[in-house]
Formats: sequence, structure tokens, C-alpha cells
Amino acid sequence: MDTPDFDHYPTARRVVGVTLEALGLTAHWDDGARTAHHTLWLRENATDRATTHPETREQALQLVDIPADLQILSAHASEAGGLVVRFSDGLEARYHPGWLRAYARETQEAPFALPPRRLWSGESLPDLPRFPAAAFAEDEAVFEAWGEALHILGFAILEGVTPKPGQVERIAQRLGPLRESNFGRIFDVRTATEQTSNAYTAMALPVHADLCTREHMPGLQFLHCLENTTVGGATRLTDGFQLAETLREEDPRAFETLSTEPLLFANKAEDSDYRWEAPLIGLDAKGALQELRFSPWLRGPLSTDLETTDRIYRALRALFRRAEAPGAFLRFTLKAGDLLAFDNARLLHGREAFDGNVGSRWLQGCYGAREELHSLLRMQSRRRRL
Amino acid sequence: MDTPDFDHYPTARRVVGVTLEALGLTAHWDDGARTAHHTLWLRENATDRATTHPETREQALQLVDIPADLQILSAHASEAGGLVVRFSDGLEARYHPGWLRAYARETQEAPFALPPRRLWSGESLPDLPRFPAAAFAEDEAVFEAWGEALHILGFAILEGVTPKPGQVERIAQRLGPLRESNFGRIFDVRTATEQTSNAYTAMALPVHADLCTREHMPGLQFLHCLENTTVGGATRLTDGFQLAETLREEDPRAFETLSTEPLLFANKAEDSDYRWEAPLIGLDAKGALQELRFSPWLRGPLSTDLETTDRIYRALRALFRRAEAPGAFLRFTLKAGDLLAFDNARLLHGREAFDGNVGSRWLQGCYGAREELHSLLRMQSRRRRL
Repeated sequence: MDTPDFDHYPTARRVVGVTLEALGLTAHWDDGARTAHHTLWLRENATDRATTHPETREQALQLVDIPADLQILSAHASEAGGLVVRFSDGLEARYHPGWLRAYARETQEAPFALPPRRLWSGESLPDLPRFPAAAFAEDEAVFEAWGEALHILGFAILEGVTPKPGQVERIAQRLGPLRESNFGRIFDVRTATEQTSNAYTAMALPVHADLCTREHMPGLQFLHCLENTTVGGATRLTDGFQLAETLREEDPRAFETLSTEPLLFANKAEDSDYRWEAPLIGLDAKGALQELRFSPWLRGPLSTDLETTDRIYRALRALFRRAEAPGAFLRFTLKAGDLLAFDNARLLHGREAFDGNVGSRWLQGCYGAREELHSLLRMQSRRRRL
Repeated sequence: MDTPDFDHYPTARRVVGVTLEALGLTAHWDDGARTAHHTLWLRENATDRATTHPETREQALQLVDIPADLQILSAHASEAGGLVVRFSDGLEARYHPGWLRAYARETQEAPFALPPRRLWSGESLPDLPRFPAAAFAEDEAVFEAWGEALHILGFAILEGVTPKPGQVERIAQRLGPLRESNFGRIFDVRTATEQTSNAYTAMALPVHADLCTREHMPGLQFLHCLENTTVGGATRLTDGFQLAETLREEDPRAFETLSTEPLLFANKAEDSDYRWEAPLIGLDAKGALQELRFSPWLRGPLSTDLETTDRIYRALRALFRRAEAPGAFLRFTLKAGDLLAFDNARLLHGREAFDGNVGSRWLQGCYGAREELHSLLRMQSRRRRL
């Protein structure tokens, strides 16, 4: 066990020298890089069995049990090009050079990093990411390419999935567990007698994200087309992250408003009352886009003063207008057997109105979690490094 | 349809006068209150069928389709004590007084508000919230009291749940769909041959939250004790929100660090690689506690400079120490038939070490979502207002 986890850290770089610092040490590398490592950081990531459980690789030594006055007594480059560190509590620990380069702030050569997302507009993406269902089922490489497209572009289409009920669950589960909701494990989108949601009418649905009214909106959505013989009903897809980044650049005040002012998202139902308050644009702690609660028609009333309300409405209208502008969205018609998978916290989906009296339209859908896709992509990359 | 949703808004208050404003209007009430309402806010919450779909109660008129120069032409108190407003696009709309009071910033008499949480320490909560399983199954009022305790205190214990596999799923589903994970729909906590998690050993587990390595950590956890004849293995529960509020007061720098600096949470497994970066203390947009990624032993390495690393470690140690301090936690032993439900994003749970060679210990668990509990509590309150 030369790293505190199960990943592989290939590197051509070697530590050639060490300088001790008040808070830890600086490693000097053969390519001129310098990386700083805190005493506690080195200590708690040691790989001896008392610090890291040999089978689970989880921390066995608790952070609070490390002496507050712990010091590094000495440190030098190891034969493997990593580090050997002797601590004042008696431990001598060895660190893998690739692991050090992966996590050091100065290098961050992280083999587990996901490929960067590619943002798009309706005009910048000429070809849809389409994959044949048969190859997806049999060929691991096609499955991997499908998963990468789903992450990088935010969506991917399988063609030729048997247009029978239940297939969507089978496909979605290849990534991981489904995310169930009160609409069921699988839901059917067709004009129903009981219209409990705008989705179940023949109305046009402006582009939107699903389940914005929940604490956790689902990260992935899968829609399998079983029948489509209606007139109209084309699908629209907008890259919400592209939209938000454009807003950030062109209308920073609107972006600021929508990423800081909490809005109320509320379902309207007789038998449930889901509501959640959050900014429409969810950013992570570093300011990167994380999720969009892009909900034109499941917003609850604002409870803000007149000026704030005015500012929020201006910002909402600026964003919503961009989402339906020509060139913002892709437009295509799902045919029986198509299965559209997409990032529900990034992409916006909608449909044009259709004639509810001609032919039939039946989609079956379910939800999943982005964390499962991310884990899968990392595992694929880890296996390639073996 | 006198409100734009399915809720009920009883009120004894009446509008007695209206003043038009540049951005909307101010309503004057018979108790002296004044509430301000924006023109667009009134317009988009009108209850006519072109604005609010009569069956789904979802917005049928899109915000972007309202004229930018819309004006209020006139407004007055209605006979019912609410408002009548005439807009420049020709619509005359009526608003229910209770609905106005529920959402106005100045009154916020929201019948759908959840009861406030009651934070506790191990010393301030003498009696555990225990409920008999038989009454829970038969008596709606007991089910409601159990749900309220689960929200207000963050946990509740059912006693006498048949100690057989699968019961935990049956109980959890009374609230809503399960949240599945790679550990399965239901997971078994007992010392197993294959130790893929510290939980599956006989080690002491410091108090912690589960699945902090995911984008969405589960909001609810259910643990059903099927067997417990070991020596040791007592359960500990800490109110993490109480802990965090104390830290906010007594060590504001540590609180600031832990609520702003993203940490890496990473599982350590051979067949999956879940990781998520977020501050340990998650706040909502108003600064209130939302979730704690309280993960002493599934933290990945920090990638910060020496000074920031030092500040983070100091803050982590301050928080972790408090969690295990005498008086911080409740301590009790689960017996066969006990089913502990708790808020996994608020409470911390742990267990003391036990003797893996004496007797047996078997818990069955599953996860759920807080949003289901919240919806249920609101629906119970709505029915009481009927």
C-alpha cells in the first residue's frame, strides 16, 4: 500500500530535495516544480495500518487524535521519487510521487479529474450525439463514449431501444440506482385524463428543468420514446450552463441577482406540497455553475420588497427570454425507440405543442444521479491507467 | 378558484384600502398592517384560467409573455376582504386575503411553514422520542407525531418493529420513495468478511453523517436493529446543527472557514470513485444551516496552500472535538425491534466499539429524502385547516 486509496498515480516526476517549513515542508521536483505539504496533511494521509485501514482505506486514525504539537523531524526524497517523512510521534511514512503531484495545490495532476464540460448553443452543435442501442449493450467502448457525451455535452441519444415499457429503467440502471420521486420509479408522459402536471397536457412546455421544487433536484433524466405519431411536439434542448455563462458576461447584475436571491419553487398539487427556496442559479463554493432550478411555471410567489421583486423579475425575464431565443436551443423530433439521457441540473428541455387529437405520443422517463455518472467516468479512467 | 394553488388560507384580516405605487400597490389592512405587492407579482399570480391552469394550478401564462410596460389601472378592496386589481392588459383579478397575508413580506402568515427545529445537546434532551410500532401502524395521529419529532428534534425511535429483514423499507416508504445508493436499496450493517467500509468492522465509529461523498447526501436515514447481543456497540447521536450554531457563536473564524472553504469528500473503494467538493457546513442563501458533510474519515486530501490548510485543520479539529465531548451526544443501546429514523444532514450518528467475537449485531438500513417528510408535514397541516 503506497497510496492511501485504491487509485493509480503514474508519474515520470521525482522529488529531488526537501526544505522543512514552519507548517510542513516543500518538496523540490526534477522538473523544477515546488509543492508545499502541511505536517498534519502528511501525517493523516500516511499509509500505515494504524492511520489508514488496510482493507477499507478509510481513515482509521482520527484527526483529533493526532497531537496538536506534532512536528516533522526529518524528510528526504525516497528511492521511488516520493517522500520519506519522520514525525515526532515516532511514525516514519512514505509517500508516492504521483499521489503527491495529484493533490498538491501547485501541480494538481489529478488523474481522477473529469473531462471538462463543453458548453454549446443550438447553432454551435451541428451533430447530435447519437449511439446505436445494440452497440451500447454489447460494446463497453460505446457505453463509455455515451457516458462521456452525457457528461461533456450534457446529453446523449440512444437509437433503436425496443419501444416497450420498462426499457428506460434497464438502460438507466446501467449507470446506477434510479432516483425515485412521487411520480413513481418510472413515469409516463402522455396526455392523461387526470392532468396533474402541465407535462401531461398537449400544451407547449417552455424549456425547463424537472423537480426544481425538491431539496435535491435529480441530476440525470432519461426519456424513452415509445410512440410518437402526433403532429407537432418537437423536443427542444437548451444548454442552461451556456445560457448562464452568457448572462454572467452580458448582464452581470441579472446573474448576481439570480445566483444570490433565494426564490421559492413550489409544486401545485392536491396531495403533496413540495417547496424549496434557493437561488435559481446554484454555484459551488468556487463560483462555478452547479445546478439551475430553471422553473418557469413552478415558481411560488416571491416574498421580497418591491425593489427586490422588481430586480428579480427583470433578471428572470432576461434569462427566460434567452432560453427560447432562436439559436439558443436544439430542436429535433424523438421517434419511437429513441432514448434521450440528459443532465437535468444543466440542460433545459421543452416540447412544442402538439395536436392531442391526432395519433399518440408516449414517453417513459426516470431519473438518476450525476454522482453515479461521475464515479463511472473516474473508474473507466482508473482502469485505463492500470 | 380564489387562490393560485390548492392550499387553504384562513384569515380574519381584511383589506380596507389601497394605495397605488410606482412598482405596484400597497394594501392597508384592518389590523393596521401594510403589505406591498409588485404589479408583475399580482399579474402572474392571477387565478384566471389563461394565467393559472385550472387543473394543474401551474403557471399557464409565461412570465416573458407579460407586457414589459404592464400597469395597474385601478385597485380596491374586495367584498371578501382581499383585492380587486385591473391591469392595463385588460385583466381584472381578485386575490384572497389569506393568500396575500401568507406571501407578503411584511406579514408572512404562512400556513405551510414547517414548525421550527428544536436544537438539543446530550444534556438538554432527557427523554428520547419513542413511539410504539403498533400505534404507528394503526393511528394516523401517532404517525404524525413521529414525523413531527423527526423534523423538530431530527430523530425518532419506533419500538417493537418486527425484527425481520425488509421491515425498514416498509416503514421508510410510508414517508415516500427510498433513496437508493451503491450500497443497495437496503443495506446491512454487521461485521462482514469483506470489509469495504469502516461501518462493516467492529471498530468504534466516531459520530458522522453518511454519504457525504455524494453530490446529494441523503436527508433521512433509517436503521432497524434486528439483533444485538454483543458487548459494547452503544449508539451515539449528536445534534450537528446545535454543534454548528455553538461553533458560530464561540469560534466564528472556524465557522467561517468550514462554511466557505470547499473540502474534498471521497470514498475509498476499488469499484467506485465518488467525490464531491463542498464546505463541511452547508448554508442556504440566507445563512441558515442546511446540511453538514460531517465526515471524519471519508475526507480526501486538501489541495490548499499551507496557511489555508492550517486554518482548515484548526477548524476541523475544533468541530470534531466538540462532537465527541461529554454532554454533546445522546448515548443509548438499540435493542432488537428498535427502528431509529434521523435527519442525516443534521444529526451525527456513531457507535462505540464492540466485541466482534461475542454475540451478534445486525442493523438494516435505508435512506430517504427530507423533502418527503416536509411535504407530509405540510399536507397534515393543510388538512387540519380544511
